This record gives sequence, C-alpha cells and structure tokens, in this order.
Amino acid sequence: MSKDYGSFSCKPNLKVAIYGVGWIGGSIARLLLTKKGLEIVGAVDFAQAKVGRDLGEIVGAEKPLGVKVTKDAEELFSTVKPDVVVHATSSYFRDVYPQLEEIVKHGVNVVSTCEELSYPYFSSGELAAKLDALAKKHKVAVLGTGVNPGFVMDTLPIVLSGVCQEIRNIKVERVMDASTRRMPFQKKIGAGLTVDEFREKIRNKQITGHVGLEQSVAMIADALGWSLQAVELGVVEPVVAEKPVKSKEIKVERGKVAGLRQSARGIMHSKPVITLLFEAYIGAEEEYDSITIEGVPKICEKISPCVHGDLATAAIVVNMIPKVVNSEPGLKTMKDLPLPSAVLGDIRRTILRFG
Amino acid sequence: MSKDYGSFSCKPNLKVAIYGVGWIGGSIARLLLTKKGLEIVGAVDFAQAKVGRDLGEIVGAEKPLGVKVTKDAEELFSTVKPDVVVHATSSYFRDVYPQLEEIVKHGVNVVSTCEELSYPYFSSGELAAKLDALAKKHKVAVLGTGVNPGFVMDTLPIVLSGVCQEIRNIKVERVMDASTRRMPFQKKIGAGLTVDEFREKIRNKQITGHVGLEQSVAMIADALGWSLQAVELGVVEPVVAEKPVKSKEIKVERGKVAGLRQSARGIMHSKPVITLLFEAYIGAEEEYDSITIEGVPKICEKISPCVHGDLATAAIVVNMIPKVVNSEPGLKTMKDLPLPSAVLGDIRRTILRFG
Repeated sequence: MSKDYGSFSCKPNLKVAIYGVGWIGGSIARLLLTKKGLEIVGAVDFAQAKVGRDLGEIVGAEKPLGVKVTKDAEELFSTVKPDVVVHATSSYFRDVYPQLEEIVKHGVNVVSTCEELSYPYFSSGELAAKLDALAKKHKVAVLGTGVNPGFVMDTLPIVLSGVCQEIRNIKVERVMDASTRRMPFQKKIGAGLTVDEFREKIRNKQITGHVGLEQSVAMIADALGWSLQAVELGVVEPVVAEKPVKSKEIKVERGKVAGLRQSARGIMHSKPVITLLFEAYIGAEEEYDSITIEGVPKICEKISPCVHGDLATAAIVVNMIPKVVNSEPGLKTMKDLPLPSAVLGDIRRTILRFG
Repeated sequence: MSKDYGSFSCKPNLKVAIYGVGWIGGSIARLLLTKKGLEIVGAVDFAQAKVGRDLGEIVGAEKPLGVKVTKDAEELFSTVKPDVVVHATSSYFRDVYPQLEEIVKHGVNVVSTCEELSYPYFSSGELAAKLDALAKKHKVAVLGTGVNPGFVMDTLPIVLSGVCQEIRNIKVERVMDASTRRMPFQKKIGAGLTVDEFREKIRNKQITGHVGLEQSVAMIADALGWSLQAVELGVVEPVVAEKPVKSKEIKVERGKVAGLRQSARGIMHSKPVITLLFEAYIGAEEEYDSITIEGVPKICEKISPCVHGDLATAAIVVNMIPKVVNSEPGLKTMKDLPLPSAVLGDIRRTILRFG
C-alpha cells in the first residue's frame, strides 16, 4: 500500500543545533522538541543574557534540556558534530555569511531563516557562488527558507505554475491583520505612529519593511526561465487608518498609521510580469494569501486567512531539515529541493542515508 | 540578480518521443511544439489508423513534422535515441508495465500519465520495486504525473503541509462542471443516463470512475510520515440532477444522472485523517479545488475555478520533463522531485548536464 522504508527505529537520532536563540530560534527549538527521531545537541547565541544558560529555560520548555547556550560556535561544532544547524540570526546574506561559512567548514548542513539567503543570487551572486563551492567541498547543503520569503510568495506560485502551458503574468498578494500578531511585529510595521513619524523611521531605517520581496520575484523568474530586465522594489508606504482600529496592544486613531504596504515587480519586455504586494496592518478586513496566474489555464488561488507567519516559519524550517540533509551538496533554494511536506512521523524514516 | 546558468544556446535540442498518440498524447505533442530547445524525434501508437502517418497530421499541427507514427517501439528507441519518452496509454500500472520496461531498457527517461504510476506502491509494491531497480540499472528516471492524480489532490496538499507544525486531518475536494469539458469526458461520467443505466454501466465497468484517488491518499500519507491502517475507496455514486441541466452536447432531465461523485479516505487510529472528494457533473454551480488542513496553523486553500484538467495535464507532463531528466535514476513520484514549475524559456537552460 505504501513505499517500504525498512527499519529506522534502531538508527541514531538526527542531531540538530540551533544558531540564534531569538524569537524565531526559540519557536523552532520548541517545535523540534515535539518531533521524534531527532535531538537538540547544541545552541549558539551571542547575547550575554543567554550565554551559559540552559536552552530549555530560555525557550520556555517544560524542563531543562541539558544544552547550554554557547557563543563559541567553533568549539561546539568541533565537540558535538550536528547533522544540521538551524540558523536564525539576521535577514541579510552579507551579515550572516561568516556564520554560514563557519558552520559549513565543519561539515554541517544548514537551514536558515535569513531572508536574503532564500534566493542569494539576487543580493550577491559572487558570495552565493563562494558559499556553493564551499558547501560542495565540505559535502553539505545550505538552504534559506521561511514563510515569506520561502513559501507563500515564491514556492507556492512556482508550484502552481507547474500546471500552466503558458503564462503572461503572475500576481501574488499577502495581506495580514497585524492585530493577530505579536507586539514586536506590530511595532515593526509602524502601527500607531503618525505618518510623519512613520516616514522619519523609514528614513533612519528604524522601519525597514519586509525583507525578501525582490528575492521572491527573482526566484519565480528563475524557476520559470524568464530573464527579467529589472526587479523594482516599491517604497515602503504607510497604510493610514480610515477609521479607528486597534489591537490588544495598540490603538490607532483615524489618520494615523495602521501598518505598511510594499510591492515589488519583475519587469520583462518593459512590462511587469511578476507583481508582489505585501500589506500588514491593524484592522485588515480579510487576511489572505492570493495568487493569480494569467495564463493557460488561468489559475486563481487563495488561502484565507493568510498562512500564520510565526507558526509557519518554524514549521517550514523544521520540515525542510530532511530535504536538506538528503540533498546533494551545495547552496540550494526551495525550488531546487523536493516538495516541502510536514514531518509528522519519526524524522529518521525520511533520512535516506539511514534507510 | 539571478543565478548564472552559463551558455546553453549551442547545446543540442532535448529529444522527446511520444508513446501513445490519443487525446492526451496529442495535446502534449501540440504543447511540445511551442517549446524552445527540444524536438519530437518519434511517436509510438498501436492503432492501425495512426501507424505510418505523420504525427503532425494526427495531432492537428500546422504542418507535417517529419515524424512517422510507428508501432515498433523497440526499433524506434534503437535508431533515434530520445532523452525522454512522454507516455500516455493507460491508467493501470500493470497494463503499462511492459511498455515502461521496454522504454527503460533502452536507457530512456519516462514521464507518464498513467494514473496508478503516480504512486505505484499502492497498486503493486513488487512491480514498483522491480521498475525502480531496472531504472537504476539503466540510469534513467520514471515519473507518473498529471493534474489528478499528480497535482491538485496530492502534490498541492503535500506542499501546503510544509508550513504546518502538526496536522489532525486533511480534506481535499475537486468539483468540476462537466459541461465545460470535452464530450468523451461527459460520456465517461455518465451524464444523461438514468440512474439504473448508470448503475448497470458501473457493474459492467463501462463507467470506471476516476482512477487515482487511492494513490493520492497513499502518497499524501507517505509524504507526511503517516502509517495508514487502510485506504478506503467509496463506491462511484451518480450525481442526480435536481433540475434540468445541460451542456452544449447533452441535456439532462430532472432525476437523471448529471455526473458522478467519488471519495477515498485514509484511515489512521480508526479515524479518517485524509479525505478526498471528487465530483464531476453537468451544472455544478461552482468549479473548485479546495484543501483544508486542520492543523497548526490551519490552512484553508481554494482554487476557483478548478484547475482545467486537460490543459493542466499536458502542461505538467511537459513541465516535469527537466525534473525527470535531471533526476538521479530510479522510480520517482512527484514528492521526490523538485518543485514543479512552468517551462517558459529554452528548456535546455534547465537541463543540468547541458550546464
């Protein structure tokens, strides 16, 4: 009735280390603790408040895990040899490159939430080629993923394009009601500010907007074989409340900023062929992820409510672990690996070299 | 801005042969003719009315293709050596096995529309293991795909599960308005019959219903790591018209059969955890493909109207060619290969050994 994977229950657990124990790293750690056939063997963080403490205590696990957070990644990788590192420190490829290099040099696979790493050829083709060569030399695979970039605005439209004979253009929208999200996210999108305050924070980079739209555009084009002239990133715009709206934490008066809106476009033959629109604000009447492919056949797809960002990011990072561990060596993107899928059984069943 | 694939324009075209020049084989041939970087080098069919004729004439191409349809597959594969065969002859794995064996023994990759081949471990694990070994010996890959099975009721729910931390159950529905489909399809689902005539045709297997629901259930479970107790296939039921409905070709009076309904369930711990529902009838008010994942997070996804079956099947067969040609050898399913994606540029760009 189903494929036979042989016996795996006597195999050793898959060894996972966590690099970056912030909000996302913490939620990934908690999710890993619920999975069978793996164990957390180490944790790296540079915050003085975390170094030396038990990981379980920091992430709010039920009991201590016997894993002390260290700032010495080098030593960790030399003593316990993880099969894979879950990496969650920064959004920018250049910033995380030295960390990735250190992990890869120790022969350890990487799944990272670094937004730019989801399609690293966009921000730096040279550094991407260097990391690819290094990963191949040390026979490991490296992947950047997450809910966005990594899934709703790139992986999913790419998958849907698979049933199309021809495509004229693709439009992807993600609209989130920020009131259902954690407080730091609401702050990050400027909820409650005046429009002037919002623009000031954009100028001095206290509000950066969403990172990854350009990567998603470039990855879709690459998957389809479209050579874009340009990827245009729109400015980050405030979404101004037309009536008072509020979350549990923030009240937004009429005329003030409820959140933000951003877009990116892929241009070919002087026309936009890929358009991504991202909106996150308090009071959105409908939260959704939608994909419209104008092609043969036409595809109109919608996920409503939108995929929950925090839950989904932890999920996809963990779910991609077997795909990365099984991959041929090199720098990979979501489009290079087998279909993502939830890991609900013993993870060792999915690890080919254990088969 | 995007990954560099080097030069491919001086590479030879990818050579494709078509095995089975029926409705689907013909539409695949027409689609192949629109793609860059490949050429059709042969065609196999056993119908006397087709053998010896030019493929272009049979499929309604604008001009002759210089490819004569042959019934001698053996000779074709020995003289022109295709890179890949597109195979579209029958729904049943056992029926097509000798054909697949012959193709594979000549060292040719296969993309097939055979429904049971989409997850061949369900109907015959032994034959699947034999084909896998043969494909590995001859260093080629074999894939069964299509819109359903192959995409809307298996690949897509598997991909969506990738953002889930845990899943309680999955429900997938495909509802088609048969009036928008070709006449043979409307006949195949019994439109216009009385309920007695319908049941008689079910008994004597003139109406078989949709093939592939069990394969889709089993493939989803395999992808998630769920060990099912059973896959239950419901009986094929008539959808009875509650008011007169019609297509261009068929009028259905009230009380007569407008089409059919089928379901399949995957059972675990004595509960249905995967439910697939397929309906195709004249007069469906909404055509859609929907997926509901009860999990963390919950996912409610819908494609409306439903993905057009004929257009999408030709598309995904052609679009999977590069994934199959690039694959490591063996028998593969959609979940084992990289994300499906439309082939819109020169197909040679996507062929790794040309890189």
